[in-house]
Amino acid sequence: MLVPIVSNKHQDFSYPRKVIVAGSTGSIGKSTLEIIKNNPEKFELFAISAHSNLALLEQQIVEHSPKYAVVTDAGAQNQFKSKHTEILSGMQELCSLCTEGIVDTVVAGIVGIAGLTPVLAALKANKRVALANKESLVAGGVLVREIIESGSGEIIPVDSEHSAIFQCLQGENVENLKSIILTASGGPFLGKSLDELGSVTSEMAIAHPNWSMGAKISVDSATMMNKALEVIEARWLYNLPEEQIEVLIHPESIVHSLVNFYDGSQIAQLSVPDMKGAIAYALSYPNGRLREVVTELSLARIGSLNFESVDHQRFPALGLARRCLKAGAATSAVFNIANELAVDAFLKGTIGFLDIVPVVEEALTICDVQEYRTLDELLALNEDVRTVLKERLFRKE
Amino acid sequence: MLVPIVSNKHQDFSYPRKVIVAGSTGSIGKSTLEIIKNNPEKFELFAISAHSNLALLEQQIVEHSPKYAVVTDAGAQNQFKSKHTEILSGMQELCSLCTEGIVDTVVAGIVGIAGLTPVLAALKANKRVALANKESLVAGGVLVREIIESGSGEIIPVDSEHSAIFQCLQGENVENLKSIILTASGGPFLGKSLDELGSVTSEMAIAHPNWSMGAKISVDSATMMNKALEVIEARWLYNLPEEQIEVLIHPESIVHSLVNFYDGSQIAQLSVPDMKGAIAYALSYPNGRLREVVTELSLARIGSLNFESVDHQRFPALGLARRCLKAGAATSAVFNIANELAVDAFLKGTIGFLDIVPVVEEALTICDVQEYRTLDELLALNEDVRTVLKERLFRKE
Repeated sequence: MLVPIVSNKHQDFSYPRKVIVAGSTGSIGKSTLEIIKNNPEKFELFAISAHSNLALLEQQIVEHSPKYAVVTDAGAQNQFKSKHTEILSGMQELCSLCTEGIVDTVVAGIVGIAGLTPVLAALKANKRVALANKESLVAGGVLVREIIESGSGEIIPVDSEHSAIFQCLQGENVENLKSIILTASGGPFLGKSLDELGSVTSEMAIAHPNWSMGAKISVDSATMMNKALEVIEARWLYNLPEEQIEVLIHPESIVHSLVNFYDGSQIAQLSVPDMKGAIAYALSYPNGRLREVVTELSLARIGSLNFESVDHQRFPALGLARRCLKAGAATSAVFNIANELAVDAFLKGTIGFLDIVPVVEEALTICDVQEYRTLDELLALNEDVRTVLKERLFRKE
Repeated sequence: MLVPIVSNKHQDFSYPRKVIVAGSTGSIGKSTLEIIKNNPEKFELFAISAHSNLALLEQQIVEHSPKYAVVTDAGAQNQFKSKHTEILSGMQELCSLCTEGIVDTVVAGIVGIAGLTPVLAALKANKRVALANKESLVAGGVLVREIIESGSGEIIPVDSEHSAIFQCLQGENVENLKSIILTASGGPFLGKSLDELGSVTSEMAIAHPNWSMGAKISVDSATMMNKALEVIEARWLYNLPEEQIEVLIHPESIVHSLVNFYDGSQIAQLSVPDMKGAIAYALSYPNGRLREVVTELSLARIGSLNFESVDHQRFPALGLARRCLKAGAATSAVFNIANELAVDAFLKGTIGFLDIVPVVEEALTICDVQEYRTLDELLALNEDVRTVLKERLFRKE
């Protein structure tokens, strides 16, 4: 039987909820602060954290007066002071805050593998993690599931696709679930031929048609690496074999995902594309949806929703993710790092758009690691792989 | 707060379930028998009933061996015998069977106001009613709600739209519900101008593009009277004011309906158009969906789902239904009868397609009744209205 991570662990849910926003200066962090500010009777901002955007962090301290603010880069020079907010330094301080008894929810908005450490700390302390950090599950899925299955920590997904799946599964028996169907916009180059894809530049790739996002995730969307990472994420989130995780192209990004039941019926979650919907759902679940989080959807105004199968020739990333899922858990970690490095190289102009997936594929051959057992092993593996790949694949940089 | 009829009354649900199929020779009845036959470990056919199609009833007795078969037309001459099945005669016998202790579920597939009596009998006896009979709620909504709210009888809707709403509301707090959105195919004449609608014949009207249905309901679909009746049905099923019941044109009939939440999110239920999906869901709820009830949906194959607003000038039926809902409950009963008579007149060629709604509107003026208190009052009112309208509006017949 399937055991979704997101099971019924939210017994003692009551407002107000004390929230930590890890990665408060990123897009997820900023949207979260907006929601908390709009619902002061429901949420109290306990702490925020940022790594490098200290100017924005300072603004957020002034505007939101959290009890704590953490600069996770321990070497950063920050001199700002605040009457209401205690300023701390280093990832370890953030992890400590995540385990404090008074804390209810940690919004994991930190990008990259760096986000895994506070996620694991919060889960170990039996907190709710509103998870936007893909790498936590892609690289650390085994560790996350171990903690979840042995304690009362829980993950509510914040990715719009995984939130949609979570919403569609409410009140349903997982035994009825034949598959989940992650929708994918197909990115800005959906209609392009292989030839045209060959000449895509970084400027073209970071302009996403539906969602306003950072450069890395925009490129991931254009290569469909983003969807590949989400397939791996779903495997750990919902404890599903990859055969039960489908991907469907849907250029309008209105249907955020669907679940497909054995009776032939499907349930879908829809809204205008706005990540605040999934964040608010994760913060308030199961206490009822917040009011007017995103603009109300009018299907009559939109007129037409379109769907098509993935063209695996033009977008080979998904096939590669499925190969990772059939290999050991460490393979997905390598996949993730190799993609980070490849996107970086593409943004710097040292490799072409169509090189990204083949480079990642080559990386999987170079770093043929299979398993890891602890966070330390995973982080060490991560560094090793990064060093090896930089040397072997990205020497031009 | 909203109190849906379909609340959590299904505590002691276990298989096998003993089922009565009232109206077994109609399209809902035939599909139900097929589902029961395919799931012999889950359902036992206790009784079937038919009014006039005795040839098919006899076949069904032979094929399905119910314990009882009822010919509801007490005057009908039937001579068939069966070793396994006891043959009964008259609506009263059907109602008695519906109250037997051993019975779990009554599938209400009888068309027209005649279906209300066994529905009320079954609900009074605290049974589950899988309701396909629109008239039960359109005409008898007040009576049905009274019984439901005072006992443990329950209705699970079998109309595809209301089943979709029911499925989408699973696990959701009704306080989050801003509106429900009933989808409507728009019928075969969606794109036609008013001029073109004027020359629609009965042959044209009974050919529905998506669903295979009877003549009456096909005409109702073409006039959108069917959707008008469903709006009234939803008012009673979900205890919603008409302002919270929206209608959205969706020609493909894939999205069977949606619920619209206060946060800006919508949940939709989708499948290929096949009424077996909703019937099977109502029979098995909440014990998990049956397997392979309808052909699996492939949105990639369908390609495009389209939506538009209702054009109230070409399709005035919905506006009329909303007027009924603002008037007393008896007005909806008149609406229902007047539509039955008008469709009959159209099928006989005595009125035109575009006359149907104006004739119903005129009927509401002629029969300005407001309330009824008992089933007897409703049935008497029904006969009176029928007589008056036949005299005043349909004398040509």
